[in-house]
Amino acid sequence: MARKDLLDIASLHREEIEFLLDQSTSFKELFTQSVKKVPALEGKSVLMLFYEPSTRTHTSFEVAAKRLSAEVTNFDIAQSSITKGESVRETVETLQAMRTDYIVVRHGRSGLPGMIARLTKASVINAGDGAHAHPTQALLDAFTIKEKFPDPVGKKVLIIGDILHSRVARSTSTLLKKLGVDVAYLGPGSLVPKYGPENIRRFTNYEEAMAWAPDFVYLLRVQMERQDVQFFPSLREYHRLYGITNDRLTEIRQRGLYIMHPGPVNRGVELCDAVMDYERSLINNQVENGIAVRMAVLDWLTPGGEAPRSEPTFERSFAPLPHLTA
Amino acid sequence: MARKDLLDIASLHREEIEFLLDQSTSFKELFTQSVKKVPALEGKSVLMLFYEPSTRTHTSFEVAAKRLSAEVTNFDIAQSSITKGESVRETVETLQAMRTDYIVVRHGRSGLPGMIARLTKASVINAGDGAHAHPTQALLDAFTIKEKFPDPVGKKVLIIGDILHSRVARSTSTLLKKLGVDVAYLGPGSLVPKYGPENIRRFTNYEEAMAWAPDFVYLLRVQMERQDVQFFPSLREYHRLYGITNDRLTEIRQRGLYIMHPGPVNRGVELCDAVMDYERSLINNQVENGIAVRMAVLDWLTPGGEAPRSEPTFERSFAPLPHLTA
Amino acid sequence: MARKDLLDIASLHREEIEFLLDQSTSFKELFTQSVKKVPALEGKSVLMLFYEPSTRTHTSFEVAAKRLSAEVTNFDIAQSSITKGESVRETVETLQAMRTDYIVVRHGRSGLPGMIARLTKASVINAGDGAHAHPTQALLDAFTIKEKFPDPVGKKVLIIGDILHSRVARSTSTLLKKLGVDVAYLGPGSLVPKYGPENIRRFTNYEEAMAWAPDFVYLLRVQMERQDVQFFPSLREYHRLYGITNDRLTEIRQRGLYIMHPGPVNRGVELCDAVMDYERSLINNQVENGIAVRMAVLDWLTPGGEAPRSEPTFERSFAPLPHLTA
Repeated sequence: MARKDLLDIASLHREEIEFLLDQSTSFKELFTQSVKKVPALEGKSVLMLFYEPSTRTHTSFEVAAKRLSAEVTNFDIAQSSITKGESVRETVETLQAMRTDYIVVRHGRSGLPGMIARLTKASVINAGDGAHAHPTQALLDAFTIKEKFPDPVGKKVLIIGDILHSRVARSTSTLLKKLGVDVAYLGPGSLVPKYGPENIRRFTNYEEAMAWAPDFVYLLRVQMERQDVQFFPSLREYHRLYGITNDRLTEIRQRGLYIMHPGPVNRGVELCDAVMDYERSLINNQVENGIAVRMAVLDWLTPGGEAPRSEPTFERSFAPLPHLTA
Repeated sequence: MARKDLLDIASLHREEIEFLLDQSTSFKELFTQSVKKVPALEGKSVLMLFYEPSTRTHTSFEVAAKRLSAEVTNFDIAQSSITKGESVRETVETLQAMRTDYIVVRHGRSGLPGMIARLTKASVINAGDGAHAHPTQALLDAFTIKEKFPDPVGKKVLIIGDILHSRVARSTSTLLKKLGVDVAYLGPGSLVPKYGPENIRRFTNYEEAMAWAPDFVYLLRVQMERQDVQFFPSLREYHRLYGITNDRLTEIRQRGLYIMHPGPVNRGVELCDAVMDYERSLINNQVENGIAVRMAVLDWLTPGGEAPRSEPTFERSFAPLPHLTA
Repeated sequence: MARKDLLDIASLHREEIEFLLDQSTSFKELFTQSVKKVPALEGKSVLMLFYEPSTRTHTSFEVAAKRLSAEVTNFDIAQSSITKGESVRETVETLQAMRTDYIVVRHGRSGLPGMIARLTKASVINAGDGAHAHPTQALLDAFTIKEKFPDPVGKKVLIIGDILHSRVARSTSTLLKKLGVDVAYLGPGSLVPKYGPENIRRFTNYEEAMAWAPDFVYLLRVQMERQDVQFFPSLREYHRLYGITNDRLTEIRQRGLYIMHPGPVNRGVELCDAVMDYERSLINNQVENGIAVRMAVLDWLTPGGEAPRSEPTFERSFAPLPHLTA
C-alpha cells in the first residue's frame, strides 16, 4: 500500500522497511554503473523546508531529489515566522497552493512534520524533528549495517551518548529492533532512559558494555548547540568516559568491530582522530548510503493521497517531548 | 507588440492585460492536467535579484521559471553594495555581461527596476519596488477576481489598510480600474490618499465602507517591518477599526463576500483566525494563481529588445516616493 | 594528458593554457549563436564550496556549470566548521561519499583547495584561495587580452595596487609571462614584492610606470574587508597616487590604452566614475569571458583520476603565505 508521508519509523511495517532497503540497493547500484540521473520524479517538485541548520542532510536530500529529476526549491523562512503555532498552517497552505509534490522538513519541534502532513496533499518527509524521529537516518543506518551482514538478526549494536534527547537513537533503535538486531545503550545514567523499547540493555560503564560483545559501536553526536554538554562534567571527561580513545580504538581494531556515527563528528569528543583512518569506520558509508536511501523514500511515497487523520504515531517516547509542550 | 520589461501596470494597454490573463488561464489549466513543465524558456536564464526578503514572491517566480524550463540563478548581493546609486549600474552591467535573459528584481527603492531595465537588454520584471508598483501581484489579483466573475465590470473591490504606502494598493487598483472594476479605499485618514486615480471612493469608517456594498474585501498587510505601525494607535486598535473581526466575518459570510490578502497574513491584525476556514477566502487562490500569472509574464516578455528610453511610467503617485529622493 | 584539478597557474603547461583559451573561444561563440546549453556535463554534479563571500565568481561558475548541463548544489558550511584543519578532511570525505564530480572551492586559506584535491577523486577547481592563486581569473584575463591582440607576445600589462597580497596579481602575471606578455607592477613600495617572477618591472610612481608605455592598465581591487587599507594613508590618497583619476583617464584615452579590473570596482578609489563610459574599458568583457573560460575548464578536467600526490605547486610566493602558517 502506497504511503503519502514518512514521519517516523514506528508506523512502518516490516515489509515496507525491507522494500525500502531493497530499493536503496538498486539505487546505489546505479551509481556504481555511473548512472547519475533517473527520470522517476520528472516534472515533480520538492520543497526543502529546513528550520534547523543542516548541511549534510539538506545536501543529501537535495542531491537525491535531483538524481530523480525532480525540481528542488528551497523555501527559506526565518525561524521566527513559524514559531507561533498559528502560522504553520498558513505556511503549509501556501506550499499547498503552489502545488508542490514533496516537502522535506526539519524543525526543532517534535511532531511538526506530522502537523504539516495532515494539512497538505503533498508527501511530507521528516528530516528530523526535535527529539522525536529521524526516519531516513534510521534507514541509512540499517542499510549500512545490512551491507556488512545481509542477515542482521542477532547482530549487536551498541549506541553511545545522550540517548534520552536523541532522535537518531530513537529512530535507529526502533528500526533495528524491527529487523531483529540486538540493541544496547551506553551513556551517563541521567541520559539513558530507564523505560523505552523492550529488550534493550542499558549500560553506564564502557567496559561493561564492551563485555556485552557488540558488533557495531554507534557514537551519537554531542549536540553542543543544544547544550547537552551541561549534563557532562566536561568534553574531556566525556571523551574519557564514553568516547573512542586511542586505547579503546586499539581494542576495537583487535576485535574487528565496526564504528558508526551520524555526523558531523566532534573530533576529540566522540572519536579520537585516528578513527578517521580506521578501516572498519562506516561513517563515510553512511553518508554515501544516505543518498540512495533518500532516493528510495522519495520514489516510494505517493503525493496526493489521503493525509493521516489521526495524530502521528510517535516512536515510544523515552522522555516527555519538551518541544511539543513548550 | 512584444515588450521587453514589466515595470508597472500603468503603462500596460488593456489588450495586453487581457492577453496576459488569458495566457494565465492556459498555464493554470496545464497544472490541472498535471503538466508541470513546458519547454517555453528552454535554454533561457533567469536571475533573481531580491534586495528585500520575500519568501512567497521569490519562490513563486522561481517555481514559475522552472516550470517554463528556464535556468534559475540567485544573485545574492548584500543590500549594502547597491544602496549607493553608483553601484547599481555596475551590478547590472555584470548581469548584462553574463548574458542573462530575464532579471526579476525586488528592491526597497521605487523606480530601481526601471533604472535596471534601461541599462540592460535583459527583460526586467518588477517584483515590487518601494511604494511604487507590484505588477504581478496586480495581475494575480485581477485573475483571481475574474475566476469568480469572468466579466468583472461594475464589481466592487474594497481595499483596506495603509493605502498611501502600498505598492499593492497602487498597482492592483490601477489594474482593476482598467478592467472596469469599481474600487474603494478604507483606512485611517492619514493613510488614504486624497488624490490619486479618479473615481475611487475613500472611506475612513468600516461601516460606511460596507454600506457601499463591496463584492470583495481586500486587506493589505500591515508592514510591521516598515513601521507603518507608528501610524496606528496599536495593533489591537487597528484590528478593532480596520480588521476582519469575528463579528465582521459573520456579516461578511451572510453577505457572501470574498476576502483577499496578498500575504503573509498577520493573524489577529488584518484578519481573525476564523478567516482561515472561511469558504470564500481567496488567499490561497491568490498564491496558486501567482505561479500561472508569472509563467504568463515570463513567457510573454521578449529579451533583447530596445530598453525603454524615457523614465519609466509611474503609476500615478499617491505620496511622494520617498526612496527616489533619498 | 587529462588533469583532475585546476589549482594554480604555475603548474599548467603552455599547451594546456593555449588549449583552454581555444576552447573558451568555442564556448563563447556558442553564446553568439544563442546556444545557451550544451550536454557536456549531463549527469555530472558540481558542488559549490564557498567559504568567502563572492557574488560574481560564484554566479559565474554556477552559470557555466548549468550551461554544460551539470547539476549544481551549494554546500553551505559555516566558516567556523572548517577553520580547524582537522575538520577539512571530514567535510571532503562527506563530499566524496556523495560522489560529487566537481568541487569549486573558494577559501581564505592559501593551499586549501590543494589539500582538498589530494583527499578526493572529484575534480577540484580553485576559485581563489587566500593570497595564493585564482587561476580562472588569470585565464579570463589572458583571454580578454588575446581578444584584443591574438598574438600578445611583447604586449605590456601594468598591474596596479597591493601586489603583495593579491592572488589575482600572482596568477595573472604568472600566466601572462607564460604567453610572452611583458608585465610590470605599480604600487606602494611596501606592497610591491622585491622578489618574485623574473623580468617583472617594479614601479612605485605612476608617471614612471606610464613612461614604460603599457598597452593595458590593470587595476587590482582594494580589499577593504581585508584591511589592506591600513597600508594606505587614506582612500582619497590612494586614488590620488594609484587610481585612475579624471586627468589620468584623459591621457589613457589619448594613448588608446585598455583598462581592466577583476571587479567589483570601488568607485572613486581604483577608478573614477568616468571609466564606466570609457570605450576601451574591458571590465565587462572580463565578466562575460569568465563564463566561457569556466565552461572550458569544467569541460577539460577529468574527475576520477589520480589525486596529486605531492604538495600543490604554488605560484612563486611573493610574501610568506600567512594563512598556511596560522
